[in-house]
Amino acid sequence: MLSIFFENLRRKSPLIHNITNYITANDIANILLASGASTIMADDVNEVEEITSLCDGLTINTGTLNDRRAESMFLAGKKAMNLKHKIVLDPVGAGSCEYRTRIIKDLVNEIKFDLIRGNISEIKSLATGAKNTEGVDADKNNLKMQSDLDEIIEIAKKYSWETKSIIVITGEIDILTDSKRVYLVKNGRREMKKITGTGCQLSALITAFISANQDYELEAAIAAVASMGIAGEIAWSLMNKGEGNASYRNRIIDAIYNMNGNILEKEARYEIR
Amino acid sequence: MLSIFFENLRRKSPLIHNITNYITANDIANILLASGASTIMADDVNEVEEITSLCDGLTINTGTLNDRRAESMFLAGKKAMNLKHKIVLDPVGAGSCEYRTRIIKDLVNEIKFDLIRGNISEIKSLATGAKNTEGVDADKNNLKMQSDLDEIIEIAKKYSWETKSIIVITGEIDILTDSKRVYLVKNGRREMKKITGTGCQLSALITAFISANQDYELEAAIAAVASMGIAGEIAWSLMNKGEGNASYRNRIIDAIYNMNGNILEKEARYEIR
Amino acid sequence: MLSIFFENLRRKSPLIHNITNYITANDIANILLASGASTIMADDVNEVEEITSLCDGLTINTGTLNDRRAESMFLAGKKAMNLKHKIVLDPVGAGSCEYRTRIIKDLVNEIKFDLIRGNISEIKSLATGAKNTEGVDADKNNLKMQSDLDEIIEIAKKYSWETKSIIVITGEIDILTDSKRVYLVKNGRREMKKITGTGCQLSALITAFISANQDYELEAAIAAVASMGIAGEIAWSLMNKGEGNASYRNRIIDAIYNMNGNILEKEARYEIR
Repeated sequence: MLSIFFENLRRKSPLIHNITNYITANDIANILLASGASTIMADDVNEVEEITSLCDGLTINTGTLNDRRAESMFLAGKKAMNLKHKIVLDPVGAGSCEYRTRIIKDLVNEIKFDLIRGNISEIKSLATGAKNTEGVDADKNNLKMQSDLDEIIEIAKKYSWETKSIIVITGEIDILTDSKRVYLVKNGRREMKKITGTGCQLSALITAFISANQDYELEAAIAAVASMGIAGEIAWSLMNKGEGNASYRNRIIDAIYNMNGNILEKEARYEIR
Repeated sequence: MLSIFFENLRRKSPLIHNITNYITANDIANILLASGASTIMADDVNEVEEITSLCDGLTINTGTLNDRRAESMFLAGKKAMNLKHKIVLDPVGAGSCEYRTRIIKDLVNEIKFDLIRGNISEIKSLATGAKNTEGVDADKNNLKMQSDLDEIIEIAKKYSWETKSIIVITGEIDILTDSKRVYLVKNGRREMKKITGTGCQLSALITAFISANQDYELEAAIAAVASMGIAGEIAWSLMNKGEGNASYRNRIIDAIYNMNGNILEKEARYEIR
Repeated sequence: MLSIFFENLRRKSPLIHNITNYITANDIANILLASGASTIMADDVNEVEEITSLCDGLTINTGTLNDRRAESMFLAGKKAMNLKHKIVLDPVGAGSCEYRTRIIKDLVNEIKFDLIRGNISEIKSLATGAKNTEGVDADKNNLKMQSDLDEIIEIAKKYSWETKSIIVITGEIDILTDSKRVYLVKNGRREMKKITGTGCQLSALITAFISANQDYELEAAIAAVASMGIAGEIAWSLMNKGEGNASYRNRIIDAIYNMNGNILEKEARYEIR
């Protein structure tokens, strides 16, 4: 079932506007190109509305946030909403400090996101107000037990219902929900957390997938999440002696470059909850 | 003939000031180091004039533009002009929106660039006012027929005559003209477009080549364009199973690192039009 | 002796706040993850104090400096000082222009850095007021003779005494001093200078090492400097035909990922001066 969503992405080559942080911008651009999409990363108030109008979808990523970039996010988000573009939020660092948490909550209040993707700490802090004291890449707030998973799923469903957004929580098990349906994706490898920006890359990839599959947002998001996880598995299987996280980063993007609908169909491990 | 220009670059090790976007800055720095040049990327109004004075050449790249960086571009450009440094413009996103197009046109009016390098959409929009609706990396506005090539060459020649700048249009065939002479370079591979920032890298490399070969701007630019294309060919020939655009990015920079005058001389495919 | 400092870093996984330039931010994040640490790179005045409070150490890197980021450096630095976090300064470009030199001197006056790491030109300019006309990556101001080394060591000791900071000067031979003790580290390869940001990466790595080894700053810094040099040696030994500085960059980070206390202990080459 998932293969068609990937093939649509390759065929339609959506242009994605990413307002994002400078740490992982290059990797985001390359993974989008690998997938068949492409990107413009304009982030200034003088041009974001016009730029987002040229595009098919918008990702807002709150890494390295500041007032100028925040203003651009609101402008672009509202414009994209008017144009009925797909809009994805990656609330990087939500809950880690007052300023960033407030901006992110304002974004969620003023812009209707089609999808919000974060790690457990970020989504938990947005949904429940819990403090997030983890590093962006080092999300120790992991699923230890079945009861944790149940709790996180309930938080995700409730937050999805409140925001009218699909919620995607990534971690060892990835959770996707539109408040009613719940999917778990079990692809990927633990070592992906040793690379900066795999979450940022996935968020942009999701925007590309749902922009190319407008009426199948949840399904396209599953395809995106599974693709990233499978890329992590394939990339790991190709690692040579002496290679580590820097080579792994390249190999994951390479695996997206070489992926196709058949591989996705065959390797995806997801289930209805 | 071209080998000497590369050897001069290796020997003279010019220091290039790049005011550029944050997406591809790292790759630009590494390809310059690979070529024998080096870079400083100061972009703030408080220091760009003094920094550009220390350097041998200046590249202005308009990706992720904003008012602050734009002001730095004008200050550095005028200082570099007074010092008779070589100055190259990479008008990233020209024609895509009103703000960026206006800043770029003002730059072209106020600063005498030795060379302007862009893709077809960007140069066409600057030269003719045409709207550019392509993504930065996804230039679909390609040469389909001989008649397209003839038209583009005429646009480039006329724009070169108007600006007194060498115009370089890169795509499947690269066009270089100083308004009278026209060269076509036919190195490179189509897959290079699947990497973000190969254009940005080439622009900075051109600045390095012409800074090291002051009286041979057009010839040095041919050498730069051919070097980048040959690097793309060599890099592709070394690709292993499972590799894609991320590894290709590294292999292209690596190929510049390992290039020499002999390889350039032997592999360059260019012709007078 | 050094192995324990690396093992502590792996075990304690410190979270490092890096206020740094956009050119090398991605590599810094990945080398920290490779080492067992992780990072947050918030750089805005609205959040740096709260973010640095969550972290175990702070690196201030003055590449691509501007007024906004400078203000964040002062705020974060003072907060980190109050919290007794370890603080490292990488004075990128010190001495190259009036603005940057002044900001860096003000930082040194107002913040008590545990350690300052730069190349010879940068430290010399801070310690003696000498003009630095080298590119950030191309430090030609090298040690030619034994007498040069003696002179540099005296400058480092005096500057360490004045600032009450450990001073680390990296180059073909790395010098570390706390004003009384002087260590030389002789690991590493000359080709590391052909990669942008190996210095930035090392500075952040030092912050991680000393944050995980609070009472052994000088020893932990030796371990960090030796680890980076050894990574450069291991990475070079794994280079394949056709590879250059871009692949070398990845392989160095990979080598940190695969390093352990035994390798460090066995391969470190350092001596008391």
